[in-house]
Amino acid sequence: MAKETIAGLARRLGISKASVSYALNGQPGVSELTRRRVLDLAEELEWYPSSSARALSRSRSGAVGMVLSADPLLIGTEPYYMGLLAGIETALAEGDMALMLRMIGKDPAQERATYERWAGERKVDGVLIFDHLHDDPRPALLERLGLPFVLHGATGMEAPPAFSATTTENAADAATIVDHLHERGHRRVAHVSGPLTHRQEEERIRGVRKSSARHGIDVVQYEANYALESGREAVVALFGTRSAESATAVVFGNDLMSMGGLLALRELGLRCPEDVAVISWDDSLHCQLASPSVTALSRNPTMQGRVAAELLLSLLDTGEARVRSLPRTELLVRDSTAIL
Amino acid sequence: MAKETIAGLARRLGISKASVSYALNGQPGVSELTRRRVLDLAEELEWYPSSSARALSRSRSGAVGMVLSADPLLIGTEPYYMGLLAGIETALAEGDMALMLRMIGKDPAQERATYERWAGERKVDGVLIFDHLHDDPRPALLERLGLPFVLHGATGMEAPPAFSATTTENAADAATIVDHLHERGHRRVAHVSGPLTHRQEEERIRGVRKSSARHGIDVVQYEANYALESGREAVVALFGTRSAESATAVVFGNDLMSMGGLLALRELGLRCPEDVAVISWDDSLHCQLASPSVTALSRNPTMQGRVAAELLLSLLDTGEARVRSLPRTELLVRDSTAIL
Repeated sequence: MAKETIAGLARRLGISKASVSYALNGQPGVSELTRRRVLDLAEELEWYPSSSARALSRSRSGAVGMVLSADPLLIGTEPYYMGLLAGIETALAEGDMALMLRMIGKDPAQERATYERWAGERKVDGVLIFDHLHDDPRPALLERLGLPFVLHGATGMEAPPAFSATTTENAADAATIVDHLHERGHRRVAHVSGPLTHRQEEERIRGVRKSSARHGIDVVQYEANYALESGREAVVALFGTRSAESATAVVFGNDLMSMGGLLALRELGLRCPEDVAVISWDDSLHCQLASPSVTALSRNPTMQGRVAAELLLSLLDTGEARVRSLPRTELLVRDSTAIL
Repeated sequence: MAKETIAGLARRLGISKASVSYALNGQPGVSELTRRRVLDLAEELEWYPSSSARALSRSRSGAVGMVLSADPLLIGTEPYYMGLLAGIETALAEGDMALMLRMIGKDPAQERATYERWAGERKVDGVLIFDHLHDDPRPALLERLGLPFVLHGATGMEAPPAFSATTTENAADAATIVDHLHERGHRRVAHVSGPLTHRQEEERIRGVRKSSARHGIDVVQYEANYALESGREAVVALFGTRSAESATAVVFGNDLMSMGGLLALRELGLRCPEDVAVISWDDSLHCQLASPSVTALSRNPTMQGRVAAELLLSLLDTGEARVRSLPRTELLVRDSTAIL
């Protein structure tokens, strides 16, 4: 199908090119009825101005958009998100940009509508997306809308990149964790992951399995959802009826689940690290302050947020897609994996 | 001085009224040079369209603005801010509004410039401000800019209100805390507050003094800055050279300072609660998970954020200024003030 032009849209509707342009760009100068007709036709034709044409014609809005589709309570308590947000804000402030935040439930239609509106009304110059999902519809949608974007924490990216992204070395992180547990003498390990809809979790699981196989470690996998309560439930499920086959260490996919896990171990009368060692895939103040303090991967979310936002700012300046791998993490060894 | 009109500005600059209007509203249709000339003159004349005229003429932007002027690191780790943000986002999402966030340092000029730009370019329909300061310049500035706003956590508000605000019962909160410490047998108390530039801190200090005087309790006041490290420093300053006159309990202005205080007590070889009891003005997961768990005022920041955002949405709908006092807090008694 040949790509439609603004002139073509104008002809089909019997209105001027200027009116089509005003309607598409959310500018004044057309009635609401006309605007609706133009947008409806554009949608029907799946028509969007090409990204470069739009970049040339658009004036900067001075804002970057971010849709938060996680549970508000999780976002409000998860230090990873807070740190990420602080890093993003710091980089944007240095670039004299604001951040447009939109919290939505787990409703893909609403997320899509938000991006469409932002693009149509030129509310934002670009967007940051995170939590790379299986069959993630966002990259294709944003390309089609001509909205520059950075996918933070992308997995399975091939070179040369189709779009801008930051990537994490999930396999290397998994090896760091498993090597440490092996060195501390563990031969049966439980891995409590976040939701498997997140591609990062699949990479982590593969990494944990591979490193464990190399060391001859048995792994039990348990899918949870990053919330503190789900870490608690995982421990009850894994250790409620303890046997000789039970794991002697648990890897939690984030700090909140680690905290829930510690609470559940205490409730079950199991000591950490004497009975069960604990290790967290994210570090935070919680891990530092917990009793025992929790061994954790320092992923530095504030720095990650900075890197992602700077990548977006550079994309907006140059128009060039780039992939940046985030700096290597470091294992902060604390009491929860102490040698006894 | 007679109020200047758009026609007057146009005459002074020798350009059309339409061009002045485009320039002021951030719309296309004028060159950057013209826009700059218009904005410079408007600033020189301290000229802003009246709030009601603007309300009539403006189309909704669909966003609410918030300037974060605290340290990014504090914002990234302080559960109060994150809970507040989550509550605000939840209420805005229900009202189909986005949140425009702008992080700036402690630079009043930059904060002012942000509000001026938001008003001039119609980026936001209203703003939320928090941390009521002494001689706070923001309410007058926002009134002048015609930007509807809600001041969250206002102090010293008289009825009828000059603007929309939420208020906290700081004196009642102080009484709750001091009554509890008195009941637990404490007669010398240290109060580690946040910065005294925050009016809320002055109200809290007055409240703590008044309630303590009623009970015959001695109070030592120490000004800190809400960061974990400042809580640690406060404890070193207060208990580093301990004497018979030292306090037996510390009230910290937030949860992060309480955590820093606990760490410092441990470093000084002082036990909590045996040697020094600890009580926090904010509750969070940190207080629940700490060892010992920390007695805290449950202020429910997520709910506070909801209330503030709903008040702003209702202001945008009705144009009526209202003051809402936030629901009463509750003291969550935990191990850090246990009777021994």
